[in-house]
Amino acid sequence: MEQTKRIKISVLTIFPGMFDILKNYGVIKKAIEKELVEIDIFNLRDYTTDKHKITDKPGYGGQNGMVMLAEPFYRFYDEFILSKSHKPYIVLPSPQGKVFNNDLAFELAKKEELVFFCGRYEGIDERVKKIVDKEVSIGDYVLTGGEIPTMVIIETLLRFLPGVIGSKTSVENDSFYNGLLDHSHYTKPQNFRGMKVPEILLSGNHERIETFRKKESLLKTILKRPDLFIKKELSEEEKKVLIVLIQEMF
Amino acid sequence: MEQTKRIKISVLTIFPGMFDILKNYGVIKKAIEKELVEIDIFNLRDYTTDKHKITDKPGYGGQNGMVMLAEPFYRFYDEFILSKSHKPYIVLPSPQGKVFNNDLAFELAKKEELVFFCGRYEGIDERVKKIVDKEVSIGDYVLTGGEIPTMVIIETLLRFLPGVIGSKTSVENDSFYNGLLDHSHYTKPQNFRGMKVPEILLSGNHERIETFRKKESLLKTILKRPDLFIKKELSEEEKKVLIVLIQEMF
Repeated sequence: MEQTKRIKISVLTIFPGMFDILKNYGVIKKAIEKELVEIDIFNLRDYTTDKHKITDKPGYGGQNGMVMLAEPFYRFYDEFILSKSHKPYIVLPSPQGKVFNNDLAFELAKKEELVFFCGRYEGIDERVKKIVDKEVSIGDYVLTGGEIPTMVIIETLLRFLPGVIGSKTSVENDSFYNGLLDHSHYTKPQNFRGMKVPEILLSGNHERIETFRKKESLLKTILKRPDLFIKKELSEEEKKVLIVLIQEMF
Repeated sequence: MEQTKRIKISVLTIFPGMFDILKNYGVIKKAIEKELVEIDIFNLRDYTTDKHKITDKPGYGGQNGMVMLAEPFYRFYDEFILSKSHKPYIVLPSPQGKVFNNDLAFELAKKEELVFFCGRYEGIDERVKKIVDKEVSIGDYVLTGGEIPTMVIIETLLRFLPGVIGSKTSVENDSFYNGLLDHSHYTKPQNFRGMKVPEILLSGNHERIETFRKKESLLKTILKRPDLFIKKELSEEEKKVLIVLIQEMF
């Protein structure tokens, strides 16, 4: 029997319609259908106090354009968050945040309930951060709104929920899962326009295939992402593969 | 007169509908309306050769689930890319790629025409990479498809096109633009639930505000992202601000 975990995710945004794509495509759609996740989208404008439903105003001090108002976030907090017996964990996607990675996704996937605050990615009233549990940055670049970063975080973390990804494509085979880049992948045909699938993958010898892939994984990481390799704690098995890899070159 | 640059972006995907959100919301919608960018979405299934329009098959070697077929990407390449007088620059979002950041976004924004290949993020036939100019990873985590990463890259790079972002919110004020995190932002009201806007931002003294922000920017970077600070080349002005910052503590 497969273990199931249900997570509840709420998103506060001025563009609720953008999140239709999560509900209509791919792995998240399936996760919703299997009731492994419930996703609710809230319109930030419903929490404004003025008749024009304004959510941003010019920033103080000049030269920093429009800044998202604190008020609507706090009103949502008062009405939605404080009404709950268990406080959901509030995430603010922001370039100032902790850098998102597989480990952080795994941590977030353990929460029972998550709330994402989507604001202008470059400017939200600093006081909103007082009610945020974690600012998360998806990378060292700046988008216009927090909506797409929120989708990145949701799609990534849902992969860690049992039952979301089929057993054949386990997240354990993903890049970064064990601190290394993934090996390469091939499918039919064996010979595509003169480019052949490595013989060993057709051998049926699972032990040799495993070693071949481990070698590729280590080599790719060393060549493309030495920074990851430096951080990686090598297992005895990985060291043995490294020895073979280097012996083969001499 | 504002300088304009027009960029053409094409996306190849099994989920063309997902990209409606780029055309319907925010900064990209405006950029399309201003004719600063043209975005065309192509359905990968239109480039399949079998009657079931299959785009993936089980991977060779076992235990790696479904892998995207090379054929449809090559057919698109033959029909779309090779028909052009100038070869577009092909980007494959992939966890194995060069880590995306503001600098890479700036480089991509200089291209005349970009093509994004969206496949399963964890597995695409290795031979597709022969026709790709750059594999790009949006961060050290794994999504299911290349669609959301493609949107991240498009939204980020479009911000570097003149005319896309209003003059008041220049990308020059963004986090990472000068290698530092952005200062904080505040808007009305001055006193929000007892939390006040720093006095200096209300002073109207632009020189002092500039120094205050620089100080905040440096301090935030040192405390939250020492890795960025280590990589940063400090200007004379920034060093002076650092001196003041440290003198104030003693």
